[in-house]
Amino acid sequence: MNFSLQDTIAVLERTPAALEAMLRGLPDAWTRTNEGDGTFSPYDVIGHLNHGERTDWIPRARIILEHGETRPFDRYDRFGQDRDSPGKSLDQLLDEFTILRRDNLRTLRGWNLDPAAFERRGMHPILGPVTLGNLIATWAAHDLTHVHQVSRCMAHQYRDAVGPWTKFLGVMHCQGHSE
Amino acid sequence: MNFSLQDTIAVLERTPAALEAMLRGLPDAWTRTNEGDGTFSPYDVIGHLNHGERTDWIPRARIILEHGETRPFDRYDRFGQDRDSPGKSLDQLLDEFTILRRDNLRTLRGWNLDPAAFERRGMHPILGPVTLGNLIATWAAHDLTHVHQVSRCMAHQYRDAVGPWTKFLGVMHCQGHSE
Repeated sequence: MNFSLQDTIAVLERTPAALEAMLRGLPDAWTRTNEGDGTFSPYDVIGHLNHGERTDWIPRARIILEHGETRPFDRYDRFGQDRDSPGKSLDQLLDEFTILRRDNLRTLRGWNLDPAAFERRGMHPILGPVTLGNLIATWAAHDLTHVHQVSRCMAHQYRDAVGPWTKFLGVMHCQGHSE
Repeated sequence: MNFSLQDTIAVLERTPAALEAMLRGLPDAWTRTNEGDGTFSPYDVIGHLNHGERTDWIPRARIILEHGETRPFDRYDRFGQDRDSPGKSLDQLLDEFTILRRDNLRTLRGWNLDPAAFERRGMHPILGPVTLGNLIATWAAHDLTHVHQVSRCMAHQYRDAVGPWTKFLGVMHCQGHSE
């Protein structure tokens, strides 16, 4: 499947409602627990997604559009939510995510980019040259990697409760594959 | 986290809306594509979940409650949706899932099971003895393993589009861990 702005936006605009439906009102035993030291709970994930909406996707797209490869992106702080989230409820973070995403998609659509624009190149501080298309596709795939993580993290809490069925549940054997 | 009926229902009652929010109206390029021969597309997953609502969870719970370990469960057909789904749109399958799940949770709640009931044992044809609590916990974890699969399957379609970012996206390196 090749990159398409429309197909990418179709995913991006659905993620806030999907995470809302999964998480709003769920007991803390599901949303505030993680998979071990240094891993994200579902609550952490929503804070992380909000941090990305503020500092990653649209700001990096702007850097590509304004500076191309001459100005590398700022480094992304994967734990930025530890500064943003304290004191906020999960419901507040979900509300923020909905609003931030809506505003960012409005910005993206407002640029009216033609297909050639997605070939424009920027400079990732670790990965090297990337295209604007790679960046926007990754925004959607990053949503999916965190839906994947939330479902895995929740399943992990029931690793004992399912008894022998753990053998048949792929999610129980996933380690996340993150570097 | 120990098994709790209330916590389990909290997950089970959210899954239809979560999959609705993720999938309804998405282009077929996301919903009708899979991860290779013999794997499920998101469309297949919803059909599979519906087949489970009809033939697996509540029917097996009834077998435990009525027969205990004396009558093993029927084997589950992981490809039962191939008989149920043809000709149906994804929207129809999502509608069915919402209704089937709602009715099944009404049945489960209607049994008014006391905590001791979840220790009652049944006989899985492959796994051997399992408890009713294991079965109900697995019903929720099975939802989560398929949310995990849907997000992975969708991400897989963008494995090239994300370019070098694939390195940072755990979901792109997940093989599903199924037996």
